[in-house]
Amino acid sequence: MSIYRRNYKWIRTLSPFQLIALFYLFAVTIATILLSLPIAYEPGVDIPFIDTLFVAVSAVSVTGLTPVSIPETFSIVGYFMIALMLQFGGIGIMTLGTIIWIVLGKKIGLRERQLIMTDQNQSNFSGIVRLVLQIVLLVLLIEFIGFLILGTYFLQYYEAGEAYLQGFFGAVSAMTNGGFDITGASLIPFQDDYFVQFINMMLIIAGAIGFPVLIEVKQYLFESGERTRFSLFAKLTTITFFALIVLGAVMIVFLEFNHFFEGRSWHEIIFYALFQSVTTRSGGLSTMDVSQFTEQTHLFMSSLMFIGASPSSVGGGIRTTTFALVVIFILTFARGKGSIRIFRREVHNEDLNRAVVVTLMAVLTVFFSVLVVSIVEPFSMSEILFEICSAFGTVGLSLGITSELTTFTKLLLMGLMFIGRIGILTFLFSFKKEKKKGNYHYPKERVIIG
Amino acid sequence: MSIYRRNYKWIRTLSPFQLIALFYLFAVTIATILLSLPIAYEPGVDIPFIDTLFVAVSAVSVTGLTPVSIPETFSIVGYFMIALMLQFGGIGIMTLGTIIWIVLGKKIGLRERQLIMTDQNQSNFSGIVRLVLQIVLLVLLIEFIGFLILGTYFLQYYEAGEAYLQGFFGAVSAMTNGGFDITGASLIPFQDDYFVQFINMMLIIAGAIGFPVLIEVKQYLFESGERTRFSLFAKLTTITFFALIVLGAVMIVFLEFNHFFEGRSWHEIIFYALFQSVTTRSGGLSTMDVSQFTEQTHLFMSSLMFIGASPSSVGGGIRTTTFALVVIFILTFARGKGSIRIFRREVHNEDLNRAVVVTLMAVLTVFFSVLVVSIVEPFSMSEILFEICSAFGTVGLSLGITSELTTFTKLLLMGLMFIGRIGILTFLFSFKKEKKKGNYHYPKERVIIG
Ligand SMILES: [K+]
Ligand SMILES: [K+]
Repeated sequence: MSIYRRNYKWIRTLSPFQLIALFYLFAVTIATILLSLPIAYEPGVDIPFIDTLFVAVSAVSVTGLTPVSIPETFSIVGYFMIALMLQFGGIGIMTLGTIIWIVLGKKIGLRERQLIMTDQNQSNFSGIVRLVLQIVLLVLLIEFIGFLILGTYFLQYYEAGEAYLQGFFGAVSAMTNGGFDITGASLIPFQDDYFVQFINMMLIIAGAIGFPVLIEVKQYLFESGERTRFSLFAKLTTITFFALIVLGAVMIVFLEFNHFFEGRSWHEIIFYALFQSVTTRSGGLSTMDVSQFTEQTHLFMSSLMFIGASPSSVGGGIRTTTFALVVIFILTFARGKGSIRIFRREVHNEDLNRAVVVTLMAVLTVFFSVLVVSIVEPFSMSEILFEICSAFGTVGLSLGITSELTTFTKLLLMGLMFIGRIGILTFLFSFKKEKKKGNYHYPKERVIIG
Repeated sequence: MSIYRRNYKWIRTLSPFQLIALFYLFAVTIATILLSLPIAYEPGVDIPFIDTLFVAVSAVSVTGLTPVSIPETFSIVGYFMIALMLQFGGIGIMTLGTIIWIVLGKKIGLRERQLIMTDQNQSNFSGIVRLVLQIVLLVLLIEFIGFLILGTYFLQYYEAGEAYLQGFFGAVSAMTNGGFDITGASLIPFQDDYFVQFINMMLIIAGAIGFPVLIEVKQYLFESGERTRFSLFAKLTTITFFALIVLGAVMIVFLEFNHFFEGRSWHEIIFYALFQSVTTRSGGLSTMDVSQFTEQTHLFMSSLMFIGASPSSVGGGIRTTTFALVVIFILTFARGKGSIRIFRREVHNEDLNRAVVVTLMAVLTVFFSVLVVSIVEPFSMSEILFEICSAFGTVGLSLGITSELTTFTKLLLMGLMFIGRIGILTFLFSFKKEKKKGNYHYPKERVIIG
């Protein structure tokens, strides 16, 4: 007993944030080991270790950036390994960890609940276990429906086995916002098939809009019980989410009207713009070679990827809520109001501080990443910015430079995918000792601000 | 009497912020009219109105960006006009306005004091009038000393009249951080003359470090009275100011070691790096063609110009204090502390909010400016970013694209110089109605942050 306690003592001294970072690192290690098995590869294919590690990090963080072509490199066994990593990375290692605990019949204690709470960013403890089950079942259900629809529909393109394999991998990759493809060219083969694009957009949105929103929508639709009011969080994140998609599509149309969209029909323009806007939320799949867009569109898409998906989703970036709070904060401040109110609710100062810190840290991180990478790589600033925002937002779009990057840049991108996925706050707090509140105060003194 | 009151009623409804914006616009108008006089030009020279307006805005905002060569375009009368605009723009139109009031024997009322307070960002009302006098006298004294030293020293380069003209314009341009030159090539003619460079750096620093710091240093040195403690503001801004200069110089050496600095002596490297770092605080003069630096150095210098000078100085940007508070805010938050303490003083939450809003607004402004300008201009992203940060920081450095810009971009840069000089907060608040505090509160609800 005393040996047991001593062995696990160091785990008990870790904060939930540190444990989450640790579990993700553990998942990456397992994923790397799996992808080191020869059975994962096409016969005769061998890739450098750095690329194996890169694909493992990219899969666990559901980013989708890859220096190698998945169908040319990996076997069908490899496909299933990657799909499994996307599931674990997407739904959240913590969530699945809890499932295992439930399955093993163990009671979930406060510490474990706290862990899930931090990973999925849930603010209230109660109903966490039920929530986790709901999330996993919901995701699996949506994926299964996606698999059936896509697989069956693909029978017109492929023979049966290949059709359902493509349907399976496609549904998992879209729903987890994994961004990987086994077509060899993302969704470009389906650039004229609006049905495939529509299903993929629905799956990407379902994954990126945030689990709490899915749960609340489900409760609203199927449970006519006491809870009919949508939470402040659900309203704020959903409005921001769709506002960003519309804004993104409109801007892409505006910026590409005389370039990529020249001579195209209105429905082509709408679908190209809409899909490429949706995919910057964190999907990473694309229906065209995004490097064909202009530099301005790349810059704008970089900012969309930087914002990323909703919190408690399969996406990354600073998150839609963070962006919304920062915008509201600026507007409220400019109008000289003291407290921040949205939908007749007051926002906590602490949440505001978090949003601001996340945004400023992210800006600094991206800026210095671009600076450092531009020293070692021959690519243009906007190509580098695009790749870095794609990694930080765990999006997975690329202007085609991933395979040509140096080992240094690949390592840096892995770090960004990791930070983007676990969130800058978790990353920051994973270095932190347990919080000690200072009880003494110094005298206040004003400071002049620009 | 009733007519008098009716006529000025609208002025009384303006906030101090609105009045400052209005006065700056007024100064630009006067400057444009002055620069429209043929006597300001070299014989036979005629420039488009947009360029006249650009030089006027650039001079009043002490930026130094110009689409035309000053010595090739303007006459000696024009030089003196520009020097006068730099004085008014540098020391602050409000400050000089007050001087005029004092000279005219009028008593300075609360409203006027408030005006100066906002322009020079002073937090306490008392001693404002004395302060203004001190500032103006100090600036004129430093400029006069600079003029004597530079003019006399220049006798080895020019004949007497030209030497003292160069000395006069050079001292005014350096001390007000105007960044204009009448050599035709900034300080490049003096790239081997470390004495001229040293004097110019001292003048630039004196102008950019902030008037309150100058006043406190003067009090510390010459008045052995009660006030010996430096204010929190003076300590914070001075440390940040010099830290940025050292960081900038070190980074320039690091980034250019195998490029621009290859084969140069250690003293050349030190002076080139130090001068080009100092000048990004807001000076705008340079001892070399900065376009010879690498793209990485341009990116880094853009971020330095974005930060800009100290508040209550002749510079622009988000200001050093803002940057320092944001950095301290992030660090304090990461360490989980509740209140922000520096030098045994607690920082007001309101100041923190201001710093954060200024920074975020500035990031958004620069980002969208780069996006918009890159649509209409053929230049690279980093050239455009450099020009935009130079305008926003009222620095005046350029990679040589200013004269080739479209009218649209010139207008946008004028806007940025204006915003950079009056400060984003003043700009924001110039749209604001008088502050009404909301006394009711909505129930608080937590929001999930990334
Ligand atoms: K992705
Ligand atoms: K300047």
